[in-house]
Amino acid sequence: MSGGGPGGERWARIFLGRVIEPGDEVGGRWVREAGATEVVRRLRGGGAAPPGLSENRWAGLRARAERAEPERDLAVAAAAGVRFVVPGDVEWPGTLDDLGDARPLGLWIRGRPSLRMWTLRSVAVVGARACTEYGAHMAATLSAGLAERGWVVVSGGAYGVDGAAHRGALGAGGATVAVLACGVDRPYPRGHTQLINRIADQGLVVGELPPGDHPTPSRFILRNRVIAALTRGTVVVEAAHRSGSLVTARAAQRLGRHTMGVPGPATSALSAGVHELLRGEAVLVNDAAEVVELVGDMGELAPERRGPVLPRDLLAPGARRVLAALPARRAAAVDEIARGAQTVEDEAVARLYELRALGYVERHGDGWKLTRQAVLSVRMDRRQC
Amino acid sequence: MSGGGPGGERWARIFLGRVIEPGDEVGGRWVREAGATEVVRRLRGGGAAPPGLSENRWAGLRARAERAEPERDLAVAAAAGVRFVVPGDVEWPGTLDDLGDARPLGLWIRGRPSLRMWTLRSVAVVGARACTEYGAHMAATLSAGLAERGWVVVSGGAYGVDGAAHRGALGAGGATVAVLACGVDRPYPRGHTQLINRIADQGLVVGELPPGDHPTPSRFILRNRVIAALTRGTVVVEAAHRSGSLVTARAAQRLGRHTMGVPGPATSALSAGVHELLRGEAVLVNDAAEVVELVGDMGELAPERRGPVLPRDLLAPGARRVLAALPARRAAAVDEIARGAQTVEDEAVARLYELRALGYVERHGDGWKLTRQAVLSVRMDRRQC
Repeated sequence: MSGGGPGGERWARIFLGRVIEPGDEVGGRWVREAGATEVVRRLRGGGAAPPGLSENRWAGLRARAERAEPERDLAVAAAAGVRFVVPGDVEWPGTLDDLGDARPLGLWIRGRPSLRMWTLRSVAVVGARACTEYGAHMAATLSAGLAERGWVVVSGGAYGVDGAAHRGALGAGGATVAVLACGVDRPYPRGHTQLINRIADQGLVVGELPPGDHPTPSRFILRNRVIAALTRGTVVVEAAHRSGSLVTARAAQRLGRHTMGVPGPATSALSAGVHELLRGEAVLVNDAAEVVELVGDMGELAPERRGPVLPRDLLAPGARRVLAALPARRAAAVDEIARGAQTVEDEAVARLYELRALGYVERHGDGWKLTRQAVLSVRMDRRQC
Repeated sequence: MSGGGPGGERWARIFLGRVIEPGDEVGGRWVREAGATEVVRRLRGGGAAPPGLSENRWAGLRARAERAEPERDLAVAAAAGVRFVVPGDVEWPGTLDDLGDARPLGLWIRGRPSLRMWTLRSVAVVGARACTEYGAHMAATLSAGLAERGWVVVSGGAYGVDGAAHRGALGAGGATVAVLACGVDRPYPRGHTQLINRIADQGLVVGELPPGDHPTPSRFILRNRVIAALTRGTVVVEAAHRSGSLVTARAAQRLGRHTMGVPGPATSALSAGVHELLRGEAVLVNDAAEVVELVGDMGELAPERRGPVLPRDLLAPGARRVLAALPARRAAAVDEIARGAQTVEDEAVARLYELRALGYVERHGDGWKLTRQAVLSVRMDRRQC
């Protein structure tokens, strides 16, 4: 896909991000059929409405198009350390393509790791904003357990279950991704500014809305499809009837992802929505081990049967340095690995999770160690030298 | 089946109740193939062990047979108001035949109602002895709700969930059956003597062990198959891993009955066994309505589609008197119905649940009223006169 210069595909998708609302399938189909640059050209031209679009809607889209400033969005993003990733980029998570015409036009990303690598082995942990102590406890414990097993925890950055999930993963020195319903440079909710900045430092903050854009009720709902599509499965921790987390769970179901629920007292209104799911297709999970048993590869239960490890030559230099810093025969803590790779700890963690997704390393207690295959491949490499 | 006189089938089954342990399938097959009287004849004769039985086991059975005193058992039972029901009797619940050779030889019964009628529309509510406050609350609420919907609650009379289930049903003026792992004249546990006597007054206390016999660990386990077989489904309220209630649930599953579980906190060891079931075939239930939705007839959701009502002529005189005491156009309380039928309240309740099983009456708030079909059949009866 061509670059971000005016008139290019990337530039056009940034432009359209100001015009087409997240998850708009009519807009998505138009972009798929005509191409983003052509859609921009038509919006800026004086032509009539394309087939299937009312004159009113066409006028509305053109009014929005007049206010689009892709160069400014890119400049604001660059200043905030935010990059824009589009389909076809190496970092684009192919799992999003399952959304069809509701696929995001692109994603704005804050944080060091590769979104694609990280989400290869990720699970969504979502739930009620106004959760109970029990819900917060379960979200944190579950997410810490997932992090300890080398899984990436994806959630929505909201109060309640989401926040507890992110904090649980971070607290276990693990990887977490927040998917926002607003510009990633403007954390929402405000009370989570510190948390979201911490996630951006140690993990990833992503979203489809352009810098500075604000959330709306429908954007919250449509954000959930991205969470569902990015991950191998969604765990709902607490949710009342008609909760937004149920939307995420049902989106996951439609996308063929695993849907899971944490049980709670039958007397708790905040477990009623989860129990509704569990009376349908969702699987009851009590802890991280049961989640991993479901979403993991076959190899999850028998590590020796894991797929082949990629040749080291294909790794990016940063990842190669981190891999080289791991001792051959024992686990090492992140600070030791970071020193050995001459980088900071957050960068080391970002690369370790990528290496984890590729099968090179695994978590071992608080630290990390080479997998059996990685050790074997080191020997192979040496023999070939 | 022939009567209780010495040498008869009923007498022989009482005799064998002192010899063969509950659920013994070898003994059950022997009785099925040779007949109970013939098995007694061989045990009392001096012959060699039958094929498939070791000499030791044969000697053990014969030693037990020497101490069998059916006449004495019958006399003790009669004094305690206990009857003995065997396969082929009108009161024998045909559902027990699903147990095959593990079917009880017979059942000792305390209480007025017909066991067969009552268990036609019954649900087992079982669980941990050392349950939590939450478990006791759920057992009581669920059972009260089942009773209010005209369902009979079957349980094991134990401390904890069982006791709460019986009390919940009784508290709602409903029907309950305790299945004991000991003689029904000698309630166990001792701390439940009053409760079990109350169940015998207002409902039924049944068991396969002869009068005065004591419970053993294996008898508790084997009692559970009777609970599972008698009912349309089993709800486990709280159960730790490896709990006896899970045996009941798995027996219910094997028998093709519905298996249900009440969720609890994932952090509660007393819900762990239930969650294990819910991760398998069992259905999560939050309340009585969800239980009835599962175990009820299709007609449960659409009362007008219920099956045809039996002609009144086939009803026993007691039931016919109670039916006649119900007003045509409104609900009536039990005391009013009992006065009208010239009987005591407990007797009236016993008959009302039988009539409920046959589709004549239904619960209405605290009282009872004729079903639509019953009203129609009264009109039909009048027209035919």
